[in-house]
Amino acid sequence: MSHAPPPSEGPLGPSSVGLLGGGVIGGGWAARFLLNGVDVKLYDPDPEASRHVGRLLDNARRAYAKLTALPLPREGSLTIVDSPEEAAVGVQLVQESAPERLELKQRLLAAASAAAGPEVLFSSSTSGLRPSLLQTEMEHPERFTVGHPFNPVYLLPLVELCAGERTAAETVGRAAALYRAVGMHPLALRHEIDGFIADRLLEALWREALWLVHDDVATVAEVDDVVRYGAGLRWAIMGTFLTYRLAGGEAGMRAFMEHFGPALALPWTKLVDVPELTLDFLDKVAHQSDAQAAGRSVAELERERDDALVAILQALRARGTGAGLTVAAWERGLLDVVPAPPAASLDGDGPLALYSREIPPDWIDYNGHVTESRYLDLLGEATDALLRYIGVDSSYVGAGRSYYTVETHISHLGQLYAGDRVHAATQVLGSDDKRLHLFHVITRLGEEAPVATGEHMLVHVDATAGRAAPVREEVRRRVEALAAAHAALPRPGRAGRRITL
Amino acid sequence: MSHAPPPSEGPLGPSSVGLLGGGVIGGGWAARFLLNGVDVKLYDPDPEASRHVGRLLDNARRAYAKLTALPLPREGSLTIVDSPEEAAVGVQLVQESAPERLELKQRLLAAASAAAGPEVLFSSSTSGLRPSLLQTEMEHPERFTVGHPFNPVYLLPLVELCAGERTAAETVGRAAALYRAVGMHPLALRHEIDGFIADRLLEALWREALWLVHDDVATVAEVDDVVRYGAGLRWAIMGTFLTYRLAGGEAGMRAFMEHFGPALALPWTKLVDVPELTLDFLDKVAHQSDAQAAGRSVAELERERDDALVAILQALRARGTGAGLTVAAWERGLLDVVPAPPAASLDGDGPLALYSREIPPDWIDYNGHVTESRYLDLLGEATDALLRYIGVDSSYVGAGRSYYTVETHISHLGQLYAGDRVHAATQVLGSDDKRLHLFHVITRLGEEAPVATGEHMLVHVDATAGRAAPVREEVRRRVEALAAAHAALPRPGRAGRRITL
Repeated sequence: MSHAPPPSEGPLGPSSVGLLGGGVIGGGWAARFLLNGVDVKLYDPDPEASRHVGRLLDNARRAYAKLTALPLPREGSLTIVDSPEEAAVGVQLVQESAPERLELKQRLLAAASAAAGPEVLFSSSTSGLRPSLLQTEMEHPERFTVGHPFNPVYLLPLVELCAGERTAAETVGRAAALYRAVGMHPLALRHEIDGFIADRLLEALWREALWLVHDDVATVAEVDDVVRYGAGLRWAIMGTFLTYRLAGGEAGMRAFMEHFGPALALPWTKLVDVPELTLDFLDKVAHQSDAQAAGRSVAELERERDDALVAILQALRARGTGAGLTVAAWERGLLDVVPAPPAASLDGDGPLALYSREIPPDWIDYNGHVTESRYLDLLGEATDALLRYIGVDSSYVGAGRSYYTVETHISHLGQLYAGDRVHAATQVLGSDDKRLHLFHVITRLGEEAPVATGEHMLVHVDATAGRAAPVREEVRRRVEALAAAHAALPRPGRAGRRITL
Repeated sequence: MSHAPPPSEGPLGPSSVGLLGGGVIGGGWAARFLLNGVDVKLYDPDPEASRHVGRLLDNARRAYAKLTALPLPREGSLTIVDSPEEAAVGVQLVQESAPERLELKQRLLAAASAAAGPEVLFSSSTSGLRPSLLQTEMEHPERFTVGHPFNPVYLLPLVELCAGERTAAETVGRAAALYRAVGMHPLALRHEIDGFIADRLLEALWREALWLVHDDVATVAEVDDVVRYGAGLRWAIMGTFLTYRLAGGEAGMRAFMEHFGPALALPWTKLVDVPELTLDFLDKVAHQSDAQAAGRSVAELERERDDALVAILQALRARGTGAGLTVAAWERGLLDVVPAPPAASLDGDGPLALYSREIPPDWIDYNGHVTESRYLDLLGEATDALLRYIGVDSSYVGAGRSYYTVETHISHLGQLYAGDRVHAATQVLGSDDKRLHLFHVITRLGEEAPVATGEHMLVHVDATAGRAAPVREEVRRRVEALAAAHAALPRPGRAGRRITL
């Protein structure tokens, strides 16, 4: 008889957050929270903040539409507020993402924490300022932690947590649960240091990169190519220690350390000092960076980056490794949060409209068209939507029962292109206690002529026993109601079609 | 009337290379060259070298089968030789991959270069030793360059080229063309430095990573997670400069540099010195690394890494960015190198066996089965193989003509699992001047019962005009010959089937 959380909240997620700062990081937080169904109150003195957030939110909507075929929760509402105090009232978390100036961050956190109830969590997006310093002016500093995200915040899973001297033991765990609920991978430092883990690594690399460009060993584009055609591909999968374990071959990590340890003392890296940012050096970097961008605006580059990040996240999800695990966990959460359409809409007014999606750019072949097999992805996702609708959800499948497709007939009637928004109209042509006969018509938004149709025969199986088995009562009733209602609809002209010259 | 290169050589690739050293790097080179159809002579005094190379070659075969659906050239032959001199005779390139000891490398390069003709290229896999030092004892030092690859050599595209003081101007270009022909991305340093570009970056990051573990801020697994759930995902796509251009938001690179420049001076990174490799510290790293490996052997981890690398490379290829471009260029090269089956095999003895592939692990859904739409990938690839066979090759398609699928009927008759090797038997059921009616039967290797069948109607189109158009004469003749021969075969039982309850 446990209490279920209210449906708008999800298992552990907040229903409302306050954001202090709406730049690249704060706007990214806004996009992540809003698309996960969380209401956002945003304070930023910059009059442009609202426009910035809108741009990042557009990016995020576009990326999420590609990242998952599952329906997202209803978007949270965005409210721009006029003070840090207003951002802190009636929310579960206040996330500060102001510029990296200690006094500014201290002042914002002090003002907001004085207005918030003592149960409200506080977190700072700082890349490296110590939480013990950030929390000094706060009311209830024990509910404060660092929660350092990475750009783009709406896509990259990592958030570094770092407790300060006055942070309470449970605060980091509460923040971690909350970030996890919006699809992130929280990782807590074992003790407080400047720069945390990520920026220690990033700055060391960045400093060397600047020296390489400063000394004309390579251009900025060449340094980037060394990373993205080489070690960067490994870093996305295994990081650095596990990668090096493999470099040791079968002898493993100790052998690698002993073998390559001495090379660390070779004079391969520059001193800790940074090249002086003279006007000449700034000019060189900016000029080379412009050449690398080759006329692409930041907005265009952001979309290129996001599309590739989505593709990599999906690749890692398919492999069940690294950041793909975070995406998979987030999707499982979506299945729980987004309710199935109510049975009441089984009204027989026409074919069901259960499925819609935008064609992602990576569905396109070298001709610019959607690859043939992606039509079956569309039809399969439309079938999945119908199955969820009739009650074949994760708990039903988890109990070892499901429908398997045994026969499919596709008619390709038009071309699809990247960015097209398509819908499926789904009709049940028949059913018995083991079989389900479906017909989908795929159309482009606002058009009448179908771009494809799919006719499908599914058989209900007991996956554990590996054989066909009667559908369970609760699903059978919904299927029968649907089949009865759809029997009154006109039969699609292409149903029952055979292929012949 | 230009001379075509011999078919076994490909446009710019070598037909034979000599390798000095067969460890993790040398064995990776062997695998890359062999799978690209290049004969390899390998010298390594370690009696285990042959076994090591065999293991890496198995890994590479497995990875390439997933990386591309195109047929690979016939594998090169591997010959173990007894001296560096023997490795250098009758080859186009000698690649040295001995341990990082200057005198050892100098001695090997001197011996091999004395035995080789002056036209043979020489390259060293060193991670950071200066080419000017490596080439001092060589005969014809002008044909020497550094060619520094990354583990696993058979998958990661990057190879850093660095000329020494005595390297001739054309040597680096010749080496680059040769590496490009076996699917790599060569990148030449603008002047010679210790550590080149990659190891300058890698060592800086590695040194910080060691300090973080030394100081108990994080375990090795946590440091790796910070990379692979965060910045590592961006590094695979854009490197570091282009990533930071975006961190500046719409204001761009100069704004980013001016804004974040001062933070470089903050005390976030350790000095250049390395934690002393005491027994205690080695124990800590080795112990944490064992925990991270969680019982997985190096061989298992290598396969996990390779599968994820393949998935990421394919994701980047689909996005047309970064290392995906190298894979796409390699595949275009494969199309030119691997000849279409000869027309003489149009013998009418039975359905055509033109297509075979192994089911990659990322085709598997959460149930452990091949995802429904992947059956259409199989059938589509089998259709592509038939189209190449009848002369619809890249030049035909490049001229704006092709066959498009208009109708597909799939019967799912069995389950497929990761690692299954499947074949298609392909029958032409009919044709006219615009249409082609195909039937594929997909079976698992060594089994009779089909796991799926596909019936397909294709229409020949003029893609430029966007409408159906008669097939060109040379293809029509092959189609008619095939249709006539296949008319004598029994018609498949499932052909012309319609879906019905």
